[in-house]
This record gives sequence, C-alpha cells and structure tokens, in this order.
Amino acid sequence: MFQDLINEALETGRPYIKEGEVATYIPELGRADKNKLGISIFCRDGSRFSCGDTKDRFSIQSISKVISLAVALEVCGFDMVFENVGMEPSGDAFNSLIKLEGSNSHPYNPMINSGAIAVASFIEPKVSFEEMLELARCFCQDDGIVLDEKVYRSEMSTVARNRAIAYLLESKGVINGNVEEALDFYVKMCSLSVTAESLAGLGLLLANDGVDPSGKRLLNSDTVRVVKTIMLTCGMYDGSGEFAVRVGIPSKSGVGGGLLSVVDGKMGIGIYGPSLDAKGNSIAGRKILQFLSSQMKLHIFAKKD
Amino acid sequence: MFQDLINEALETGRPYIKEGEVATYIPELGRADKNKLGISIFCRDGSRFSCGDTKDRFSIQSISKVISLAVALEVCGFDMVFENVGMEPSGDAFNSLIKLEGSNSHPYNPMINSGAIAVASFIEPKVSFEEMLELARCFCQDDGIVLDEKVYRSEMSTVARNRAIAYLLESKGVINGNVEEALDFYVKMCSLSVTAESLAGLGLLLANDGVDPSGKRLLNSDTVRVVKTIMLTCGMYDGSGEFAVRVGIPSKSGVGGGLLSVVDGKMGIGIYGPSLDAKGNSIAGRKILQFLSSQMKLHIFAKKD
Amino acid sequence: MFQDLINEALETGRPYIKEGEVATYIPELGRADKNKLGISIFCRDGSRFSCGDTKDRFSIQSISKVISLAVALEVCGFDMVFENVGMEPSGDAFNSLIKLEGSNSHPYNPMINSGAIAVASFIEPKVSFEEMLELARCFCQDDGIVLDEKVYRSEMSTVARNRAIAYLLESKGVINGNVEEALDFYVKMCSLSVTAESLAGLGLLLANDGVDPSGKRLLNSDTVRVVKTIMLTCGMYDGSGEFAVRVGIPSKSGVGGGLLSVVDGKMGIGIYGPSLDAKGNSIAGRKILQFLSSQMKLHIFAKKD
Amino acid sequence: MFQDLINEALETGRPYIKEGEVATYIPELGRADKNKLGISIFCRDGSRFSCGDTKDRFSIQSISKVISLAVALEVCGFDMVFENVGMEPSGDAFNSLIKLEGSNSHPYNPMINSGAIAVASFIEPKVSFEEMLELARCFCQDDGIVLDEKVYRSEMSTVARNRAIAYLLESKGVINGNVEEALDFYVKMCSLSVTAESLAGLGLLLANDGVDPSGKRLLNSDTVRVVKTIMLTCGMYDGSGEFAVRVGIPSKSGVGGGLLSVVDGKMGIGIYGPSLDAKGNSIAGRKILQFLSSQMKLHIFAKKD
Repeated sequence: MFQDLINEALETGRPYIKEGEVATYIPELGRADKNKLGISIFCRDGSRFSCGDTKDRFSIQSISKVISLAVALEVCGFDMVFENVGMEPSGDAFNSLIKLEGSNSHPYNPMINSGAIAVASFIEPKVSFEEMLELARCFCQDDGIVLDEKVYRSEMSTVARNRAIAYLLESKGVINGNVEEALDFYVKMCSLSVTAESLAGLGLLLANDGVDPSGKRLLNSDTVRVVKTIMLTCGMYDGSGEFAVRVGIPSKSGVGGGLLSVVDGKMGIGIYGPSLDAKGNSIAGRKILQFLSSQMKLHIFAKKD
Repeated sequence: MFQDLINEALETGRPYIKEGEVATYIPELGRADKNKLGISIFCRDGSRFSCGDTKDRFSIQSISKVISLAVALEVCGFDMVFENVGMEPSGDAFNSLIKLEGSNSHPYNPMINSGAIAVASFIEPKVSFEEMLELARCFCQDDGIVLDEKVYRSEMSTVARNRAIAYLLESKGVINGNVEEALDFYVKMCSLSVTAESLAGLGLLLANDGVDPSGKRLLNSDTVRVVKTIMLTCGMYDGSGEFAVRVGIPSKSGVGGGLLSVVDGKMGIGIYGPSLDAKGNSIAGRKILQFLSSQMKLHIFAKKD
Repeated sequence: MFQDLINEALETGRPYIKEGEVATYIPELGRADKNKLGISIFCRDGSRFSCGDTKDRFSIQSISKVISLAVALEVCGFDMVFENVGMEPSGDAFNSLIKLEGSNSHPYNPMINSGAIAVASFIEPKVSFEEMLELARCFCQDDGIVLDEKVYRSEMSTVARNRAIAYLLESKGVINGNVEEALDFYVKMCSLSVTAESLAGLGLLLANDGVDPSGKRLLNSDTVRVVKTIMLTCGMYDGSGEFAVRVGIPSKSGVGGGLLSVVDGKMGIGIYGPSLDAKGNSIAGRKILQFLSSQMKLHIFAKKD
Repeated sequence: MFQDLINEALETGRPYIKEGEVATYIPELGRADKNKLGISIFCRDGSRFSCGDTKDRFSIQSISKVISLAVALEVCGFDMVFENVGMEPSGDAFNSLIKLEGSNSHPYNPMINSGAIAVASFIEPKVSFEEMLELARCFCQDDGIVLDEKVYRSEMSTVARNRAIAYLLESKGVINGNVEEALDFYVKMCSLSVTAESLAGLGLLLANDGVDPSGKRLLNSDTVRVVKTIMLTCGMYDGSGEFAVRVGIPSKSGVGGGLLSVVDGKMGIGIYGPSLDAKGNSIAGRKILQFLSSQMKLHIFAKKD
C-alpha cells in the first residue's frame, strides 16, 4: 500500500518532465536522459521502497554540499565554519557574487557555491578527497559511489565562474589553504556518481540523528540538526522558501537531477529526475515531494495529533 | 519546576540587555525602558507560566505581520496573496528596496515591510481596521489590545521610507486599492499595544493548529502551517537563518521589543525585551529562546525519540 | 550650404525612426506622431537654420532638468545643490532607486529623476512655478512655452514611482520643503511645451556663456560651465558615455522626443524626434547629431587646428 | 612667469598631502614617500616646465589603462574593443564586480579594472609586453621606463581580486586568449615605472592629436579622441564626474600617485603625488589641477573668447 502511494507519486510527477530541461552549462550534464525518473524511500524501521530509475547513476552536484558541510562541522567545528560562512538564505542565485561585494561580506550560507567552496577549503587540508569518497559511501550506504571522471573533466573545463568566486573569497581571506586545491576538491565532490538509492541512504542517516542502520553513529547529533535546518532554509536554491511552505521537508537539490529529502525521525528520500525547473531543481521531484508531503502529512508543521 | 526553568531562562537573557539598544527611528519607541524583560508561556494543556514584565504594554510592530498574513490568507486566499508577494527570505534588511528594483520584481516575503504593506492593501478593502483589532484580541486572547495613538502618530510622522515603499509597490501594480489607506492600515496594525501574555496567546493559537483554548477554530490548518513556515524562514529579519539553526522555533520579532514564538503542537511563547540587537531582534529574547530550546529540546530538528 | 548640410543631416536620421518607439509610460506621450522630425540651429552670429517639424510643440520632459539645475545654481548656490546631489554618472537607469539604498547615499546627479526631484525641492520654496515658466521662456527665447495641462495630468496619474523616489529622498533628509509640492513642481517642469526652436534658443544661451542674443546676461558663467559639463557626462541617460565618445557635444534628451545640444562657443541645436531608442533618447536625433559632429567637427575633442 | 604659476600651483596643493594616504593594498606601493610632489608641463610649442619631484620614478598603475586602450584601438579596432567593453561611467568603485553580475553584462568601461583586463586580453595575443614597453617609451618620450620587478611581484602576490575579475570575464566570454596571460600582461602594464615628466610627455602626445614633438604620428586622430573622451568621463575613478565639473581636463589617475592630464590642443601635464584621497586619486594633484584650470582657464567649457 505504501508502495502504491509511491508509484502514484511518481506518476503525479512524470507529466512535469516535459516542462523542464536538463542542465547544460556543464556539457557532460547535457547528455542526461531527461525522461529518467526514480524515487527511493528508506525508512527508519528498515523497510525500503523504490520505483522507477533508482539504480541509474548521475552526478551528485550540489547535494555534495550537504556531505561537505557535515564533514566540516565534524572536523573543523561549528565555530570555524560559521565564522567564515553565514547561515542566511541569500535570496539570490546559487552562483551569485553580489553579496560578496561589500568589504566585510562573506558567503551567505554553505549551500550556495561561494559558501561550499569556502567549506571545501576548510576540509581539504584535513581530509583527502579519497577519504571524503569513503565517507560519502558510508553516509549513503553505497559502495558504488565513484568519481565520475567525465563529469569532473567537463566541469573543470567550464569552471571559470566558480574559479572567479574562489579567488574573490581568497581576496577576502575566507579561503583556508590553497585556492586551486579547494576548487579541485569542490568540483570532485560535485562529480560523485550516486543513485536515488544513495540519496535515500543519506537521507535516512540524517533522519536518524546521524546513526546508520547498523546502529553506528556516523555524525554527531548537533551536526545533523544544523545540516537539516540549513537544508530547510537554503537547500532548494532561491526557491527554498516556497518549497518550505509547500512541502516542508528539509531537502537539497543538485543540477544533476538529484533530490535528497529528510523526513526527520522517519525516513530518507532520494529522487532522480534530471529535467530541471528554472531555478535548477528537479521539476518532477518537486511535484513528487509535494504530493507525498500532502498525502502522508510530512510537512514539518503538518497538523500534530 | 517548569516555572524554575523559565525564571532561569529570564536570568540567562538579562545580562545581554546592556549590549543592545531600544529602537529610536520611531521617536515614541525610543521612550521604552530598555531594562524591561518578561516571558509568558501558554501551553496546549492549559497551563500558563509567566515571569518578569509580562503585563507591560508595548507596540506590536512587525509581529502584526503574522496576524495580517493569517487574515489575508483567510479572506483573500493563498493564491491572491502569493501571486503578488513571494515566500523567499531576501537576505536583505527589512526595509530594503533593492529587490524591488527589477521590472518584474515583487516583495520577497510578507515579513518584510514591502510584503506587509502589500498584504495590508489586500486586506484593507475587505476588513476594516476595527475588525482587525477585534481579530487581534481574539487571536491573542487579550481584550486589552488597543491602538496606541501615540505610537501611531509618531510612526506616521516618520513614515517617509514606508510611504516610498508603498508607492513603489503601486508603480508595480502590487497594491490593491488605495495606497494611503493601505499604508495607514499597515501603520495602525504596527501600533497595536500588546503584552508578552498577548503574544503567548497568539503563539498558542498557532501551536494548536488555529484552534483557541475554548476549542473554537479561528484559523484554518493550512493558514497556520503557511504562517509558521514563513515565521521560521523569514521571521527574525536578516538573522532568520541563524536563529533557525541555533533555536529552531518559528518566531517573529518586532522592534517594539516583542518576540512571538510557536513550539508546534506544544506551546506559545511571548517575550518582551525592548533592548534590540543590530538586526532589530530583542537581544535578551534571543538568548532566552536559545536557552529554552536547548534545555527543553524545542528545536524543530531536536533529536526525536 | 549650411542649410544643405542640415537638410542632409535630417535625412540621415530619418530612416532610424522606424527602429524606435514613442514613450508610452506616460499615456499622453504615447499619442505623439512617431514620424515627426525637425532640427533647429541658432548660431552665435545670429544666423538661424531650421528643417522639418521645428514648430511642433511637445513636452520638454527631462530637458527641464537643465533649466532647473541652472536656476538652482543661481538661486541656491553651488554648495547647497551639491551637498545634497552628486555630480557622478550613475551607470543605472534614470529612474533607478538602487544607488539611493545605502544609509548615506544621495542622488548621483541632477539629470536623473531622484536628483532632479531634489533640485526641484531646493527651488520650489524660492521660485514659484509661474516664475520658472517665465524664466524658461526667456532662456529659450520662446514666449509660446506653456504648461501642457494634458501631459501634466497624465503624468500625475502615473507618478507613483517618482513619488516613491520623492519620499525616499525625504526619508534621507534630502528634500527641502514639502515633498508633494516638490513633486508637483517637478512634474510641471516636465510638462512645459516646447519646440525644436525653443531648444535651439536654450542651447544658444548656454553656448554663449549665459548671455542671450540681445546681449543680456541671464546666467552666470560658472553656472553655465557646470551645466554643460553635467550635460556631457550625464545628459543622455545611461547612454551618456557612448554619446560623449561618438558625438562629444553636451546634450540633454527628454522622453518627449526633444534633444538639446550645445556646441560651446558656437551654436545651440534643438531637435524634435519622438521615436526613442531603448535608453529613452531620440533615435533619429542621435544619428543626426553624430552626422553633424562628424561633418562639422563639433566633438569637444575634434582635432584642433 | 608661467613657471611662477606652476610653482604656486604646487604650493597650493602641498598642504593637502597630509589629508591623504599612500596606497597600501599592494604592499610595495606602501613604501612610497607620501610627501613627494612634482609637476611637469610639456607644451605644444615645445616649451617645458617642471617643479618639484618630477624625476622620481613610481609605478604607473591605472594610468597604463590609457596606453593599453590606445594600443587596443590601433591594433584591434574600435569595434572589437567596444563590442566587449562599454563606454559608460559605472558609478561604482574601480574594482567592483556588481555590474558584471547580470547575464549579458560586460565591463562598463576600459578605465576600471574589469575593462582594462579585458582590453589586456585583446592586445596580448597581438603585441608582446616587450613591444608594449617600447610603445610606452615612445608615447611618453622616456627611454627610462622599465618594468618595476618589485612592484610587479608585490602586485602578483595580492592579485586575487583581479584574478577573480579575470575569471568572471572568462566565464562571460569576454576574455580573448588565455586568462592568466592577460592578467600577467595587465599587472605588468600597471608596474611600469614612470615619472611626472613621462606623463607630461604622454599628455602632450594626446593633446597634439597623436603626433609626437618630432612631428611623427604615433596614434590615429580617432584613437586619441576616444581616449580623451573616456579619460574625461571615467578617468578619475568614481570621482570622475565631480572632477569634470570642477577641473574639466581629461585626466587619468593611478594609485601609484601619478596623474596624467591633457589640455587639448595645448599641453600635457604630469603630476606625481602619492598621497591619495579616499577614491584613489592624488589629493594634492587634484588641487593643483583645480588651481591651474581656474587660473589658466583650462576647463573644456571655460568661457570662449
């Protein structure tokens, strides 16, 4: 019966695919099949549900910002991270430079590119990319996660704007360590290949207070609380506010078509749907989550019994 | 024992009073006693707790935006409100004009002045100020709420920037009805005199899904969910994101020193503390809520059992 | 022979009419005949040349900012004017609010709406509109200048954005006197009806150091120098820089289709061509001036012999 | 007697030295002696006047933008340059990124860093730095001009913001050729060591329509006209408009303390005064030029006889 609801959710989202487009600003992303659609739900009680293209690999893109933020909070601490990066939604596009212009300004939050590049520079001297890859596999319960070399090279070939952001951060003293290495680290993290199932696994970890299904604590409770809050306020680019109102589930999207959602205390949801709306969010994914939130009362402020 | 905790919370906040200042841009607000501090908590089970200056009247200021949004959703509907006003945190100051500059732009959300003036213009042709006053009394369970004529006149004497915002909205076709009447309505709503107890009453109504303590439904469930979400993402001016991370309780502050908080499904909290931080939030109030959130696990993403 | 050149200039400009549009944001301006085109040149030696629709009346619009600035410099003095209004090109649109956003900001220059409304507020308490009308007639050597009541009323019916600017200025303490009266004064000045000949007359006055053809000094030498410089750097909206490079003649355009040019020490030029380019400048007028500047070596930095 | 006037001008400017500061954001510039002051004037009739520290070498900094623009116009042509860089004053600081934010935006003009880096990228594939150095020597009539290696290395060590600008330009397709080589070329041009006399030589070349004192044409008439116009509207950072009003002489300043001025058809002026005002212009230099402009009627719109 839950499976039926998920199937229905998928079909509710599917018609919107044609209204969106796959991302093209990174050439390799433009090769995605716009019609792919899949959803996986991993519940805290151990049950798992999938429907559609949930084993297709795609690049994680901005959803990696969640992993990086979590690791940064663990290895660098809350204070170091948030002395240099804010916690505020910016109201501007994810790759905006405007709010970096003022003399005292720093990145508004860790979910926009500038904030995530700063966070990458905090982690990079302490945790190697290979270690991060291993952590990603653990968090997502997916040993199949690898660096997608094609995406990585494609993104590095069109990285000028992010490099501009990185050097602007350096000029403000926000970068810790070497700029080019931070940038490389950031792009590699964006190029991890995941599936809808990987994201459901990551979502479950966050829904379960940082404890994995085997009962092992991978992340501290404080880290997880911070991450979920920032996903809620900043996770869906400059559509985060509307998404919070309409869906009310902490989520993070990536332009590779992935969507990570955390129903706190209950389940992790992973969606793959590379047809994007104008703000860079999976267009079918948004609709699926809106349907599920409404049907299953998953909104953070859904009526309490 | 709960009373002890509340007393302790108050004392935790009190030392911060001296680091803030009362608002002065509206002359009458500058006459507030910076050292006042009080907190009231009204629980869903009917119990009520107060400590400090909880019967002092002060002007509601921006907290009235919560009442106006709720009424607008009820009488105009979700679509009319949000066709003309966004749901996004802006990342800019509450009285900013920057994001109104573009040709298609509209107010980012109903918690900043531009959004609230637009909302006032939607309500004003349908609900008189006298009716709004009556609604405010019901929502807050406080028949003592009145229009503070001194504050109203003081604010009207320095209203030039808000009038500029109102006319800019008119030039964009966002204002419904007469500009000057919308502005007058907006300023009157800001000039309602409330107490910490009034705010606790309003908070309880929202915590209880729009049903008042007598069991009467005053607001629809959908309205209440939207209002709480927007309070969470936009309620603390441009400090909303950080407050969500650190406290995680939907709240709305006013420069009169009031702070309204909603612990969903549990309780309403009202605080009066007119010494403000640089962003316009009650400085002691923020600390009190952070203490209570931490001690009582009130954060929306506090560990679920 | 000079007449032949002027005729040729007019025909050089005429084909561009179809690439532009008349202004429509003030309804009454939208009734202009797009195909009208005329040029008048009044030389310092007393000779006068005209071609095309040089006796058609149209509303002066922004060209009145030149008259107002000149009068403000005479009656209020350089210091009062430029303590409150800058002399810098803004790089933004004429009705922009962006650069007024900061706490210490003031209008960038007297040729954009915000600056001109401020200037109007400086003059209005000292010089009545009737006196300004008389001054305009003297400056332009045209007794036929009147207030076009239709344009004035039409503009007042769509004045919301300028009113917003006026109140924003008041909130910054830039307005001297009453806001509404300053705004009314500003709009009336924009609604003066002139001809291409009127503008040639005004241009000649400025070209001749403030001395009219009868030998009477109407403006001080310093005033005229300031006005010409600001026309050069700020007179053609956000196309002023390019116009200075390509044409190099101090000019001021209005969305009514007028174009005032001053060939310093030599002649005044008035053009009427209500088909506008995207920046609000007469599209044929620009081409005509570019032709004349090139043919007659009128650029301020044309090769000196 | 003219020498007396120049001496007087220098003394008029000297007291302002103490109100400014040498530039420090490039460490090597911070070593300049704030009290240095010198002025050279080279006239079209061959006479030359100097006073003060006119043989001291200092780094040309932004004044090199004039040389680069002139060379770009000669070797790339007007169209290529201005398809990618505007001619408009920006109203923002010289190192601002704001107006580059929009999707179609390009640098506002060739006198701000973004525009000059773009221009460097146009030239660099066609003219080597060694050739540029030789051209600079010819234009300035100063064989002593060399690359100041210390300044070059110092600037490269703090080049992050300009590198950010360069990569942002690349992301917009404005850069022609290799970004790093364009940036290196740009920084090298800024690191040329000149004297007040060099600048007077360059000023004379521009005053004399591109023909050097020996009668040899080094630059086309059109190039020189464009360069002078852009110096007038954009040459003094975001103080260009006020400088045009008060002084009215096409000029370009550099944070090394140099000031290049062109009295069209008459003379070139070079000033060295490393104590800068808040906008980055030589504070004594500005006062000296204002004095000379007033005394000698050098303003472009000074009263014509």
